[in-house]
Amino acid sequence: MQKNHSVQNKNKGRLLISCADQPGIVAAVSQFLYSQGANIVESNQHSTDPEGGTFFMRIEFEYEGLEENASNLKEAFAAIAENFEMDWRLSLASQLKKTAVFVSKEPHCLLELLWEYQSGELDAEIALVISNHEDSRTFVESLGIPYYYIPANKDIRKEVEKKQLQLLEENQIELIILARYMQILTPDFVSQHPNRIINIHHSFLPAFIGAKPYERAYARGVKLIGATSHYVTNDLDEGPIIEQGVERVSHHHNAEDLKRIGRSVERSVLARAVNWHLQDRVIVHENKTIVFH
Amino acid sequence: MQKNHSVQNKNKGRLLISCADQPGIVAAVSQFLYSQGANIVESNQHSTDPEGGTFFMRIEFEYEGLEENASNLKEAFAAIAENFEMDWRLSLASQLKKTAVFVSKEPHCLLELLWEYQSGELDAEIALVISNHEDSRTFVESLGIPYYYIPANKDIRKEVEKKQLQLLEENQIELIILARYMQILTPDFVSQHPNRIINIHHSFLPAFIGAKPYERAYARGVKLIGATSHYVTNDLDEGPIIEQGVERVSHHHNAEDLKRIGRSVERSVLARAVNWHLQDRVIVHENKTIVFH
Amino acid sequence: MQKNHSVQNKNKGRLLISCADQPGIVAAVSQFLYSQGANIVESNQHSTDPEGGTFFMRIEFEYEGLEENASNLKEAFAAIAENFEMDWRLSLASQLKKTAVFVSKEPHCLLELLWEYQSGELDAEIALVISNHEDSRTFVESLGIPYYYIPANKDIRKEVEKKQLQLLEENQIELIILARYMQILTPDFVSQHPNRIINIHHSFLPAFIGAKPYERAYARGVKLIGATSHYVTNDLDEGPIIEQGVERVSHHHNAEDLKRIGRSVERSVLARAVNWHLQDRVIVHENKTIVFH
Amino acid sequence: MQKNHSVQNKNKGRLLISCADQPGIVAAVSQFLYSQGANIVESNQHSTDPEGGTFFMRIEFEYEGLEENASNLKEAFAAIAENFEMDWRLSLASQLKKTAVFVSKEPHCLLELLWEYQSGELDAEIALVISNHEDSRTFVESLGIPYYYIPANKDIRKEVEKKQLQLLEENQIELIILARYMQILTPDFVSQHPNRIINIHHSFLPAFIGAKPYERAYARGVKLIGATSHYVTNDLDEGPIIEQGVERVSHHHNAEDLKRIGRSVERSVLARAVNWHLQDRVIVHENKTIVFH
Repeated sequence: MQKNHSVQNKNKGRLLISCADQPGIVAAVSQFLYSQGANIVESNQHSTDPEGGTFFMRIEFEYEGLEENASNLKEAFAAIAENFEMDWRLSLASQLKKTAVFVSKEPHCLLELLWEYQSGELDAEIALVISNHEDSRTFVESLGIPYYYIPANKDIRKEVEKKQLQLLEENQIELIILARYMQILTPDFVSQHPNRIINIHHSFLPAFIGAKPYERAYARGVKLIGATSHYVTNDLDEGPIIEQGVERVSHHHNAEDLKRIGRSVERSVLARAVNWHLQDRVIVHENKTIVFH
Repeated sequence: MQKNHSVQNKNKGRLLISCADQPGIVAAVSQFLYSQGANIVESNQHSTDPEGGTFFMRIEFEYEGLEENASNLKEAFAAIAENFEMDWRLSLASQLKKTAVFVSKEPHCLLELLWEYQSGELDAEIALVISNHEDSRTFVESLGIPYYYIPANKDIRKEVEKKQLQLLEENQIELIILARYMQILTPDFVSQHPNRIINIHHSFLPAFIGAKPYERAYARGVKLIGATSHYVTNDLDEGPIIEQGVERVSHHHNAEDLKRIGRSVERSVLARAVNWHLQDRVIVHENKTIVFH
Repeated sequence: MQKNHSVQNKNKGRLLISCADQPGIVAAVSQFLYSQGANIVESNQHSTDPEGGTFFMRIEFEYEGLEENASNLKEAFAAIAENFEMDWRLSLASQLKKTAVFVSKEPHCLLELLWEYQSGELDAEIALVISNHEDSRTFVESLGIPYYYIPANKDIRKEVEKKQLQLLEENQIELIILARYMQILTPDFVSQHPNRIINIHHSFLPAFIGAKPYERAYARGVKLIGATSHYVTNDLDEGPIIEQGVERVSHHHNAEDLKRIGRSVERSVLARAVNWHLQDRVIVHENKTIVFH
Repeated sequence: MQKNHSVQNKNKGRLLISCADQPGIVAAVSQFLYSQGANIVESNQHSTDPEGGTFFMRIEFEYEGLEENASNLKEAFAAIAENFEMDWRLSLASQLKKTAVFVSKEPHCLLELLWEYQSGELDAEIALVISNHEDSRTFVESLGIPYYYIPANKDIRKEVEKKQLQLLEENQIELIILARYMQILTPDFVSQHPNRIINIHHSFLPAFIGAKPYERAYARGVKLIGATSHYVTNDLDEGPIIEQGVERVSHHHNAEDLKRIGRSVERSVLARAVNWHLQDRVIVHENKTIVFH
């Protein structure tokens, strides 16, 4: 489904809608797009409950000259949106989301993202990498991506986040990826980026919330280990889950083996979650996600 | 998603559409349903190619008094269908499809279907079971399902199929499930039930087409074995694939082990494929399936 | 690997050993078996830590006239066992373990076990089924297995267990399978059958310990649901894990869907765990299992 | 299980054995290791058939001063090996296998191997990379690995292979990895490296042998795509299979999507197969592999 080249995406728009479920929504929206000369390429919808639930919709469409006429299109749609009291947004596939990656020592998740980025499989503009370690600088800079080393620990959290927030603002960052960034963010930081911070937790949530999940998985003697990618909220590892994955382990494996095996689960789970977000496939509702893929 | 009780499905309809892709289809169809007072519950679409391809759509909707007014609804939709030169059908979820299960000696796939049937998870009316062996009679009849023993071999194929076709006609069978039925059907038989015969082949097609797939998988030393459920055509094991599954094996396993391990893949793959068909989620296009699930 | 017919297993023995790790164990044991004229068919070992850890071994061997000479063989091995201060047992594959299945209303796990039992894939003698409901009587008795209906609730737990324990004793039960038996067992009951009660919990432990795991999984918005088979201890759902499995779910699925999807995971996970126990492939060490498969 | 640092592996040896199955093998080998003061860390065995089959064994052991005394140990074992007419080899975990990676344009499999190499998870010494394209030079050389660009096409195959074979000989290469190298090797080349060339084929063999497997998988409408890692023989894609993996696809995916999805299967399947080979876990018997993991 994924188109990699901006040129291919020149005329591709994505309309995301959520509102109280009621008759006529699909008719009104599709009628609107048709009347505007837009051609629906992909369409997904979900209703929490046909009676009195919430309705969600994602439409991907082709529209000749979208970039020039996006604002007119939005203006025209506003009327319909008002009728149905919709939360909605219209995004252009050609406008890649400005993204910042946070990482600590372990590079595997960062490398996975950079690799897909390199091969044109990640619909993002990776504007910068921020780390509390120097380890990954060489590789990141070799791709022409600025690397900011900001030492961190819980005692200087405020100052650290001040620097980070400034960088994010200067670069107009729309998505923050915590690619195994091992520092906890303050409520203040999180509240400034609602549903725009994606974390990878190295366990099958809600099992093993918090620190040292692999050690605890080993201690419990589980037969599968997992990873979970979720939006960051102020409840540690309690944010809306976007994607999860697992891998089989056995009594042969010690805690170190679990970490090694887990790395490949972590990186693929995070990469999938990030791609879905970048393609506007994820809608957050209460503490859950609707993922249209 | 699945609703098990006919009463729940009293007002549920499914509209399946395929036609040349062109602007305005979704608008016209959703506008129609809205104007009729139908409420869209689930909607899926697919286009083989936005330019000049074929467009497919499945809409599940709630419509008060559907059973009484189905014919009016169809009549009203016919006009739109004509405009877009659609192939289409409207089916009622409350009208369970009359189904016949064919089986030989191995009962595992039959048992799986009967269990889901028993537990109300199979949206079918299993009208009869036909077998060239007596093995499964007791269990089938204990569920009040007629069991017809029709000995078969390739020399008497014509007479056998004559009896089978008569039973299918008498019972107005809409779906034939080959649950490990080890006789080959004649082109004449198949042509009378296009895309209405579902088979389970005990390999990961197109690998190991034909006889003794597990023996050949063992001989080849594969590390995964599979099963494939597909519609039956006159090209052996070449029909449109509905679903596939695999399971891991190793050098520890001999051909008998592969058969044992494979049984659980076969039964779950067949059950999924059958359920999708029964819920009108499968559209056949050329030699492939579009499965809206 | 599995041989289904007792006759095939006439001469097959299984030797399970655990002791402090030290040099010469494998040499001594294999030398012993060789000197006795036994032929090693399968051998597995594990050490928690080559220096000062615990050593575990399972050897499957063929021994002409095993049934007649088992006691002599045990006597002869006792000397070696003493040298290395081993915990050990020698079991005969031909002596199927007497098994009791406990079930409440939901039959899917029971049915799975009976089905494998029927098809000769379960190396057990199912001596009886105990239930606090009548639902499964017909099917169980149709296989010639006694069915005991013992109404249960937490107020009469003691009396209920008294009846159950009596049945278990009368039938010399060696393994108790809780196939979705929804009553909690008392510490007294559990302590009488250490590592001989296998439960299936309908979640990916340690997530969703306790009641209503599917409802809670739905509420949390997980993207995978799971099942866990474990030995029962007096810490609810905290016993040694034997096997786990997962299945993918999405925002399309409500709590009822999760239950339906979960059933097929539960039954296959339980069946695998039970088979491994029956084939003496599971050793419990502290709160974990070593599974030699 | 994997230990990454040579120092940890200083005293670790691996003994691989195959011979006609007969009583006393395990006893003799384990007795020998014990008498030499070696401590068995891991042991696996397999027999194609207890009566008159072939017996395979892999023993991993710790032996103080292995590097100095390896030759004595081998000499001492030769006597036993002769008794049982064994094919055998004793390898030192500390001696990393000299490896050459061949790649064409697509870098994902090469990158996967280099990352694991970088992170110390690949027990190999990657001595050089050979490619018929320049694409991957920068990244390879950034890791200090020599990169040889040797243009190739079927008309100049002989000259190309002459250069390649010379490089392999100069570097005493013990393992050749075809990481999506799209040129066919001549029988002469292959015969010089029996069971020492590992290829990744981008299909679930034996399905889609040969060229354009993803295009053909798309044309067939499969619901799962796969990848297969195998030793190269002179029958195209018919060599002994080491590992396979699959990923789910649907009607939404075109041939390009299958390639993208397949890349992550290919790289993980190849990496597992290569690691097993490097750890001497793979034994080739006839046209199959025994993989002790």
